[in-house]
Amino acid sequence: MGSRFAGAGYHVVLCRRSDESGLQQSVVDIEASGGSASGFILDATQPEAIESLVEQIETDLGPITVAIFNLGAQLGNRDLADTSLKQFELAWRMTSFGLFRLAKVLLPRMVERGSGALLVTSATAAVRGNAGQHAHAAAIGGRRMLCQSLNAEFSAQGIHIAHIVIDGAVDSPDTLGKMLGPENFARYREALGPDGLMDPGEIAETYFHIAHQHRSVWTFETDLRSFSDKPWWNG
Amino acid sequence: MGSRFAGAGYHVVLCRRSDESGLQQSVVDIEASGGSASGFILDATQPEAIESLVEQIETDLGPITVAIFNLGAQLGNRDLADTSLKQFELAWRMTSFGLFRLAKVLLPRMVERGSGALLVTSATAAVRGNAGQHAHAAAIGGRRMLCQSLNAEFSAQGIHIAHIVIDGAVDSPDTLGKMLGPENFARYREALGPDGLMDPGEIAETYFHIAHQHRSVWTFETDLRSFSDKPWWNG
Amino acid sequence: MGSRFAGAGYHVVLCRRSDESGLQQSVVDIEASGGSASGFILDATQPEAIESLVEQIETDLGPITVAIFNLGAQLGNRDLADTSLKQFELAWRMTSFGLFRLAKVLLPRMVERGSGALLVTSATAAVRGNAGQHAHAAAIGGRRMLCQSLNAEFSAQGIHIAHIVIDGAVDSPDTLGKMLGPENFARYREALGPDGLMDPGEIAETYFHIAHQHRSVWTFETDLRSFSDKPWWNG
Amino acid sequence: MGSRFAGAGYHVVLCRRSDESGLQQSVVDIEASGGSASGFILDATQPEAIESLVEQIETDLGPITVAIFNLGAQLGNRDLADTSLKQFELAWRMTSFGLFRLAKVLLPRMVERGSGALLVTSATAAVRGNAGQHAHAAAIGGRRMLCQSLNAEFSAQGIHIAHIVIDGAVDSPDTLGKMLGPENFARYREALGPDGLMDPGEIAETYFHIAHQHRSVWTFETDLRSFSDKPWWNG
Repeated sequence: MGSRFAGAGYHVVLCRRSDESGLQQSVVDIEASGGSASGFILDATQPEAIESLVEQIETDLGPITVAIFNLGAQLGNRDLADTSLKQFELAWRMTSFGLFRLAKVLLPRMVERGSGALLVTSATAAVRGNAGQHAHAAAIGGRRMLCQSLNAEFSAQGIHIAHIVIDGAVDSPDTLGKMLGPENFARYREALGPDGLMDPGEIAETYFHIAHQHRSVWTFETDLRSFSDKPWWNG
Repeated sequence: MGSRFAGAGYHVVLCRRSDESGLQQSVVDIEASGGSASGFILDATQPEAIESLVEQIETDLGPITVAIFNLGAQLGNRDLADTSLKQFELAWRMTSFGLFRLAKVLLPRMVERGSGALLVTSATAAVRGNAGQHAHAAAIGGRRMLCQSLNAEFSAQGIHIAHIVIDGAVDSPDTLGKMLGPENFARYREALGPDGLMDPGEIAETYFHIAHQHRSVWTFETDLRSFSDKPWWNG
Repeated sequence: MGSRFAGAGYHVVLCRRSDESGLQQSVVDIEASGGSASGFILDATQPEAIESLVEQIETDLGPITVAIFNLGAQLGNRDLADTSLKQFELAWRMTSFGLFRLAKVLLPRMVERGSGALLVTSATAAVRGNAGQHAHAAAIGGRRMLCQSLNAEFSAQGIHIAHIVIDGAVDSPDTLGKMLGPENFARYREALGPDGLMDPGEIAETYFHIAHQHRSVWTFETDLRSFSDKPWWNG
Repeated sequence: MGSRFAGAGYHVVLCRRSDESGLQQSVVDIEASGGSASGFILDATQPEAIESLVEQIETDLGPITVAIFNLGAQLGNRDLADTSLKQFELAWRMTSFGLFRLAKVLLPRMVERGSGALLVTSATAAVRGNAGQHAHAAAIGGRRMLCQSLNAEFSAQGIHIAHIVIDGAVDSPDTLGKMLGPENFARYREALGPDGLMDPGEIAETYFHIAHQHRSVWTFETDLRSFSDKPWWNG
């Protein structure tokens, strides 16, 4: 994602919860391709963490024109009995509360400037609950309704809110790969066949497109999945 | 709601957050009509409050066969700037987390007995976000996905989960009436015309029907509104 | 369905496309239980057939207060190559055009009387298309939008339109049984387990309930399925 | 739309029902910008018209790689009483049956080639019926379910089906302009304010993007509207 926007001339600010060296590597990779980037470790569940980072970025680096909220809380499938109160709350705190906090601090700044885009990465569980998805679906399904509420208030003020439903597995060794382990991940990828996993670079193309739509033709919601995958409504 | 179920022979347990005398009056009213009821003050946001009350009821009064979760967090319309972090969290804590906690403590008991019904009162904001609904829509929209997740795990185990979308204003002097004030409430009722407000006793008829559907024909979701009102999808 | 309404004192008018003796048997069965019924053979695809029957019923038997539109066009799964233009058109003609014609002739009469109910039996394909469902989904999905349009025009005039999604297989030897053949039907029923097929008499209970909701609490859409079945959104 | 694809090197085939000289002018305009185009008068309601044109194009001009189905049947708002059987049928014949016929003749060819895209221009009435939209909503809502059915059968065979919901008024002097008349159209545009009408050239950007998504990240459905307009779910 970062490299797509950096390649188009954006200064990209990357945030992740942990892995400082991985973060710095991503910055270096973007710079090696001639781009410009910064990286921050951010625990979005900490009070004031989102708020102060937004202020810092706007002060030190300049106005945020496009924000991409990628935070999710997919824990794999867990029965109700195996989903703790803590997990349920954490999923909400990262996914739904995190976006709300970002919106509270960022959107007024964008409104003052008369423009801006907030793109939210969502998932299947935002549009249908399923077995084992109690915490994830509640958090992310609520966030979808939050996005519609934000859009209702801010669209006419020039702020583009978009809710992007990633309805499939992404070819991401860092997240899905770590969740499954390298061998299972390799097996899974092979089972799905060529282009059965969603290519992150190609996902970024659609984000970039949406972030740059003319304001007379804004997308609020779109879905993405591999050609070989079934949409959520087909099970 | 209580009187409908009491009239059919249920022992009804009423819970409300405050107003002990109002609560006792409701119990007395049911008993005066020949029904049987108990009342509890319950602050569902308190740790262990839901959990211990369920245990107490099951121990002292008998197995809960039908649970109706009415808790909502409609605060009227508030711009993002006027919606505090606290309000956003409270809405989630009452609406979504509250149901999750109830499900965690109640559903395993119902599963052991092989039957039970959990009916959730929902609202328009569960199916579409709108201006001023940031906290409410996020909380209640998430809860809808939670209900689908619960249904996916528990339906085949004999537990009937139903999500009932109250898509309009209810003729409730105690809640809407207090929110608007008696004069505005009277004006509002008159403006809507006869049967323009939803009759709570008539709503209870549909709850009762759903709670007693044969297990070969269970409803998961239904919507209700006055004949003179527009459905949410028509604005 | 007929016996539920007849048992409540309605004179029931049954219509089917063919099988005069089966039709008369249904009338006799209702009468044997103390009810009142008439039967008509109706090919709803014929010009004027619906229109003249409505007029005949209203003239000879009295005003139609509740109409239940059951006509569907489920042909089983057929690939696009195996779905002919004729089949596609026929599915539309029965399902969507048929309801439109009924609405054109019946609703103005109901409006004049200030009340009436039109309940439409729908199916999974109305809310999501799937492989092999080209003709069925197009016909029945369009009809759902027609129902919303009818509701938008007629609800405030006192006409209750309801769209009932039968999201599962019905225990109907006459339709599903004939489609599968008696042996396959028996095997299918056994595979689904007890109450895995939807009981038609129990479905009728929900129709009866909806047809008699107080006008301050009308349902437009509800779904029904067996407890042991998966909802369409869970595949 | 045509000029966007022509500018990227496509030979564009334009079809319209009437106005041969307008059609030729569009071809000339594309050629004047260095593009390549052909034009055909096509009455899609005529038997064999779609089928033979597809064959002719494939034979004379080469394989169709991207097909854009723009046919709609918005007649403005008409009460049920003012919507004739003929209009209802015509709306279906153009909108839903037309796409089915195109799919029958075109998709097998694309399957043989292992790739292709079919983009369908849809409208608000595909996702919610409304007063006066009986014919339009039934036709276009059915077509949405048809698109889902086509996608379920053809996506894994390499054919990209996309359903694009144009949820607002397009700045099109030729269609909306003619429907309203030039003065009303000018007034309407002014009332909506800058960029309140959707720019057709900008709509084409999103079509072009979707038509060229990598097959690991295909969009099935997206919505588009002006920043200053309300989404359909907000009325």
